[in-house]
Amino acid sequence: MTITHADLAALDRHDPLAGFRDAFQLEAGLVYLDGNSLGPLLKSVARRVTEVVANEWGQGLIRSWNLHDWIELPQRIGDKIAPLIGAKPGEVIVADSTSVNLFKLLAAGLSLQPERTVVLSARDNFPTDLYMAEGLAGLIGSERCSLRLSDPENLLDAIDERTAMVMLTHVDFRSGRMFDMQAVTRAAHESGALVVWDLAHSAGAVPVNLNECDVDMAVGCGYKFLNGGPGAPAFVFVAERHQPVVQQPLSGWMGHDDPFAFSSGYAPAAGMKRFLSGTPAVIGHAALDSAMDLWQQVDVGQVREKSLRLGDCLIELMENEPALGGFELASPRSGNLRGSQVSFAHPDGYAIMQALIDDLVIGDFRAPDLLRFGLTPLYTRYVDIGEAVSRLADIMTSKRHRQPRYQLRNTVT
Amino acid sequence: MTITHADLAALDRHDPLAGFRDAFQLEAGLVYLDGNSLGPLLKSVARRVTEVVANEWGQGLIRSWNLHDWIELPQRIGDKIAPLIGAKPGEVIVADSTSVNLFKLLAAGLSLQPERTVVLSARDNFPTDLYMAEGLAGLIGSERCSLRLSDPENLLDAIDERTAMVMLTHVDFRSGRMFDMQAVTRAAHESGALVVWDLAHSAGAVPVNLNECDVDMAVGCGYKFLNGGPGAPAFVFVAERHQPVVQQPLSGWMGHDDPFAFSSGYAPAAGMKRFLSGTPAVIGHAALDSAMDLWQQVDVGQVREKSLRLGDCLIELMENEPALGGFELASPRSGNLRGSQVSFAHPDGYAIMQALIDDLVIGDFRAPDLLRFGLTPLYTRYVDIGEAVSRLADIMTSKRHRQPRYQLRNTVT
Repeated sequence: MTITHADLAALDRHDPLAGFRDAFQLEAGLVYLDGNSLGPLLKSVARRVTEVVANEWGQGLIRSWNLHDWIELPQRIGDKIAPLIGAKPGEVIVADSTSVNLFKLLAAGLSLQPERTVVLSARDNFPTDLYMAEGLAGLIGSERCSLRLSDPENLLDAIDERTAMVMLTHVDFRSGRMFDMQAVTRAAHESGALVVWDLAHSAGAVPVNLNECDVDMAVGCGYKFLNGGPGAPAFVFVAERHQPVVQQPLSGWMGHDDPFAFSSGYAPAAGMKRFLSGTPAVIGHAALDSAMDLWQQVDVGQVREKSLRLGDCLIELMENEPALGGFELASPRSGNLRGSQVSFAHPDGYAIMQALIDDLVIGDFRAPDLLRFGLTPLYTRYVDIGEAVSRLADIMTSKRHRQPRYQLRNTVT
Repeated sequence: MTITHADLAALDRHDPLAGFRDAFQLEAGLVYLDGNSLGPLLKSVARRVTEVVANEWGQGLIRSWNLHDWIELPQRIGDKIAPLIGAKPGEVIVADSTSVNLFKLLAAGLSLQPERTVVLSARDNFPTDLYMAEGLAGLIGSERCSLRLSDPENLLDAIDERTAMVMLTHVDFRSGRMFDMQAVTRAAHESGALVVWDLAHSAGAVPVNLNECDVDMAVGCGYKFLNGGPGAPAFVFVAERHQPVVQQPLSGWMGHDDPFAFSSGYAPAAGMKRFLSGTPAVIGHAALDSAMDLWQQVDVGQVREKSLRLGDCLIELMENEPALGGFELASPRSGNLRGSQVSFAHPDGYAIMQALIDDLVIGDFRAPDLLRFGLTPLYTRYVDIGEAVSRLADIMTSKRHRQPRYQLRNTVT
C-alpha cells in the first residue's frame, strides 16, 4: 500500500516549514533535488547582491569597508552560522574555500602535537579533503605528516597513538551515510588525537552540536544547504579552548592583529580572525550573509524531521513503483544513519540522470553509478518527491534515457 | 607659472581615453583617487552580476556549471588578463586571494630548487606578502625556508647563492616606486634564483611584460586597477616553461586532472589548472570577467602616458599651491621610476585625508604620514586633479582637518 498523491498533499498542508518556500526563486514545474550541491537563490539574496554592487560598491566605494562594515563580514556571518552547528559566537569565521580552510586546520592541528604525525581519514571521504591533506604532507614531509585511509566501518579501530587528527566528512557525499560525531570524537580524544569535521553536507541539513560533542575543529560549505550562492565562501570552526594556542600557516594580512599598521612582522589576531588570510570576497560574503538571515528564523529540529520524512517517502515510492525495479538504495534506510540526501545505484545512472534533468527533476550523478537526490526541507514539498518519482518512472518505462544524447553528453554536476 | 584649469580642460579634450569614463558609475562631484585600493563599478559589471545571480544561478542552478561554463571561468579570465601583463594564453589563472596564491607560488618555487632556502624580499614590501612567506617558513621550517629582508635600494646586492626566490611587489604600495623588473629578474637568474612578482599595483596600471623580462612567477590583484569588485579573486602567472614541473601544496579538487572522477589520490591537472584549489567563487569571478572585457579595448600605452601626465600635473599643482607648503612628495618625481600613484607626506596626513574624503576627494592614508592618490586614466580627468588640489588647499587654508572628528575617527582605508 504505497503513498498516494493525496497523502503527500496532506503532509504539505501540515508542514510547519511550508511558508519558507516562497522566499526562494524557483521555476514553476521544476523539482530541485540538488540543493546539496548548489542551493537555490533566495529572493532576498538577489536584492542584497544588487544593493551591495550598486550602492555599497558603486556609491560607497572604498568607504564601504567602514560604512557598511565589510571588514567584519567574516565574523558576522560566522556568528550567524554558529547556532546551526552548535558553536558559540566567536567560534566560527567565514573565509576562502572549504579546501583552503581545511589546509589551515590540518596544519594548525598538527602543530599542536608534533609528536603525532598521522592524519586519519575515511577512504571514501570527499576527495578534495584527501587531496589537501596529501598536499600538506607533501609540503612538510612524511616524517611530520602522513595521510592514512581507513574503511569507514573500521575507522574507530584505526585510531592509534600516532594519530594526530581524525579528519572526516560528517555526512558522506555519495551515500549520505552519517558518522556518529560524538562517538568518533570521543574515541579520538581517548586516544589523544584531535578531530576536524567537514560539515559540507551537515550545516543546514542535519542537527550538529560541535560543542556538545567536544569537537576541536570543523570546516563547512556556504553554497549547499546554506544557499549562499555558487562558490560561496566557506566557514571554519575552532573550539574556543584551542583558539589562543593555534596558528595557521596561510597568515595573510586579514589575520594580523593590526592589519592597517602595515608592520613587517606577522602577529596573529586574537580569536578566529587569525584564520583569515587575504581580503574577503565581499560580494560572495554578502550573498551568504543574506542567506544566513533566513536560517535565523528556522527551527533545525523541524528541518531534520521533514528531511527524514521526505527521504522515507522517496525510498518508499521508489521501491513500490514497478518501473523502478532496477534501482538499488545506496543510502542508509535508517534515518538515524542518514544525512539529508538519498542515493540510488543504477548501471545506467548517468544517462538516466541526464534524462531526468531534461524533465526538470534536478538531482545529480556521482560516478560510477549513483543518482543522488538532495532533500532540502525549506523549499522541497512532499508532492515534489511524488512528482520526481513519477517522472523517473516515465523515463524508465519509455526507455528515453537510452537515446544517444543522454548517453554521450558530458556534465560537471 | 602653474597649470590652469583651462590647460587641464584642454588635456581632457584631447585625451584618447576620455570615452571610457562613461562606462563607470561615478557620482557627480566625486573625485575618486583610490582606484589603486578599490576600482569603481563599471555599469556593465553591475548588469553582469545581476544576470549571473538572477539567471545563471537563479534559473540555471547547478546546470550553469556547464550551461554558462562556470567551470572554465578561472582560465577564461586569466586569458583576458594575460595580454595586460605580457603573458601568453594559458599562463594566467584566476583563483583565491593574492595572499593565498603567493603561498602556492613560494612553495612551488622552493620545491624547484631544494638546495636553496632563502626568500629574499624588500623590507617595505606589502606586509601580506611578507606574512605569507613567514607563514610558509614557519610551517616547513627554517632549514627549508627563511625570509630575508633587504632595503630596496640594496636588493640586487642581497641576492646570493642561497637565494631561492626573489619576491617583490613591482610597484610599492606606499610610494609608488617601481622596481626595474627586467634588471632584478636578470640579476636573480644570474645568481640561480627564481623571481615572483606581485603585480597588485601594476596590472592595468603600468605596462608589464612578464615574458620579455623572463619572469618565472607572478601574482596580482583583481580589485584595484582591474575594477573587478571588492575582494575580487586574484590571478597567478607561471611561465610556461615551469608549468609541467611545478606543484603547489594547496592541491584541491579544482586543480585535479579529473576532478569529477572523485578518485582518492591527487593528480595535478596540466597547465595552470593545477594552481586552483577549491570551488571558484562564481559571482566574484563573473564580476572580474566582465570588468576585463573593458580592458580588451584599452591601449595600455595610452594608459601609461596619461597616468604619468596626471601624476606630473598633480605634483606640479601641489608644489605651486602656497597653501600646500607642508606636503612633501613621497613618490619618485621621475615618471620612469613611478607606478600609477603619487603620495605626499604630511604629519597631519590622517586627519587631512579624512577631511578630504568628506569633501568628496577620495584618496587614502598609509601610516605613518602618507596621503596616497591613485591615478586611473580610464575614468580620471585632468580637471579632477585640479579639483582635488583645489579642495585640499581649501582644507589647509581653513584648517578644517583640525576639527576633532577628523582627528579621532577610525578608518580602514
